Amino acid sequence: MRRLKLILEYDGTDYVGMQYQPNGVSVQEAVEVALCKICKQNVPIVASGRTDAGVHALCQPVHSDFPIDAINPQNLQNALNSLLPADIRVNKVDVVANDFHARYHAKKRTYQYKITNKLTAFNHRYFSCFNFAELDCELINKYLELLQGEHDFSNFCKINPAIKSNVCYIFSAFICPHENYWILKISGNRFLHNMVRRIVGTCFILHQERAEPEKISEILNGKDNSARYKFCAPPNGLYLENVEY
Amino acid sequence: MRRLKLILEYDGTDYVGMQYQPNGVSVQEAVEVALCKICKQNVPIVASGRTDAGVHALCQPVHSDFPIDAINPQNLQNALNSLLPADIRVNKVDVVANDFHARYHAKKRTYQYKITNKLTAFNHRYFSCFNFAELDCELINKYLELLQGEHDFSNFCKINPAIKSNVCYIFSAFICPHENYWILKISGNRFLHNMVRRIVGTCFILHQERAEPEKISEILNGKDNSARYKFCAPPNGLYLENVEY
Repeated sequence: MRRLKLILEYDGTDYVGMQYQPNGVSVQEAVEVALCKICKQNVPIVASGRTDAGVHALCQPVHSDFPIDAINPQNLQNALNSLLPADIRVNKVDVVANDFHARYHAKKRTYQYKITNKLTAFNHRYFSCFNFAELDCELINKYLELLQGEHDFSNFCKINPAIKSNVCYIFSAFICPHENYWILKISGNRFLHNMVRRIVGTCFILHQERAEPEKISEILNGKDNSARYKFCAPPNGLYLENVEY
Repeated sequence: MRRLKLILEYDGTDYVGMQYQPNGVSVQEAVEVALCKICKQNVPIVASGRTDAGVHALCQPVHSDFPIDAINPQNLQNALNSLLPADIRVNKVDVVANDFHARYHAKKRTYQYKITNKLTAFNHRYFSCFNFAELDCELINKYLELLQGEHDFSNFCKINPAIKSNVCYIFSAFICPHENYWILKISGNRFLHNMVRRIVGTCFILHQERAEPEKISEILNGKDNSARYKFCAPPNGLYLENVEY
C-alpha cells in the first residue's frame, strides 16, 4: 500500500460538488469509480476540502491509499485521465509519506472568483454575472483589506454547529480587472462553508450601495446584521485555485 | 406579420446541431419553444445554415415570420434570453424586409476552428486537441492557400446526392497562433457538409507527414484519393463566426 497525492482539476458545473451527495454525481464518486476500475477494489480519496455544486477547481489535492505497491505515477495519471470524464483531469500523481493528509496538513488555500457583467453562451459556466456599468475595484479592495488577518467569520458563512471555531486567518484578498472580466482572489488558512461566496456577495452589495469601507467590519463583528448583506454569490464563478502544505 | 432577423450565439456541446434531429434537442427546437411561449403559436425559424452536433456559433443569423405586428426588438430579445437555456443567447433582433432569407441571401460565411495540444477540464468543450509538439503554421498556411479561390470540394465533404454542385469559392483561409492555442479561419460563399472539418483534418494529417503543399491540390482534384487524408476533425473546436449578406 502506498499513499498517493493526486492533483485534480475540474469543471464543477455538472457535479453536485466534490463530496458524495444523494442527489447526483460528485467529483469524488467519479474519481473513485475510475480508481476502482484500475484496482478492482474500492479506493477512497480524501480531498483538501469540499467544494459546493457548480464550484470548480484548478488544483484540488486529494490523498488516497493505493493498494498496489508497484506504481508508475505517470502511468496511473494517464490511466485515470483515459477513464475520467473530460471535465475532470488528474494533473499530477505523487507518492507521499504514509501520514500525509490532504485536508489536515493544508496550510494555505487560495480561491479565485471570476466576475462578468455580460453573460454569453460560452462564459456562463465559468463566470458569475453581476449587474454593474462600472466596477470600482479600489472600493472593493478597501472592503477586502478589512477582512485580512485573523477574524471570526461566523457572519460570513453557513453556520455548522459541528464546527467549534469560525476563526480564520486571511493572508490576502483583492480584486483585479482583466480585459473584459474581473478576478477576486482570496487566500486563507481555512475557509468555512459558503465563506468565499458570502464575502463576494457582501462586497457586491456594499459596492452597489457605495458603502463606506468600515461597513464590512460592522458586518464582520455583528454590529450590522441586515439580511440584505447576507448574499451568497453564485457558485459558477468560484474556483479552488491552489492549496499549499 | 413581420419578418425578423435574429442573431444567435450558442455553445453547441449539448445540442444535436442547429437543425431538428430525432435523437435529441436541437438549437432550432430550443429557440422555437421559446418563441412559441411568447407568441402562443408555432413560429418556425430558418437558419443561415446547419451546424452539426457539438459545433458552436458566435453569430448564426436566422429569420422568422413573427405573428405579432407591434414588436419592440429589444423587448423580444430580452424575453427570449430569459426563456432560453444559458448556452443559447439572442444577441440582436431586427425587423427586416419580408423577402429577406437568412440562408439564400448569405454571401459570405466565416468559420473558425480552435485548436489546442493540451486538453484541460475547462477547454474540452471549446477546443479540438491535436497531438503535436510544435505546429508549423507556415506549412499549414501553404496548404490553405492552395484551397483559396473557386474549386470543386467533392473530395472535402460528405457527399449529398441532393446537392447539384460542390463548387465553392474560398475567400480566405489561414491559421494564426495565440497564447497557448491556434485558430484556423476560413471564409467562403458556401460550405458543404463537414467541409471545414475535413479541411482541418486533412491539413493536420499533411502537417504530421510534413507533406509538400501541392499534396493538398492532388487531394482536392482527386489525384490522391488515400483514405488517410479523409479525416474529419472533431466538432468541438468549430465555430460559425459570421455570416454576411
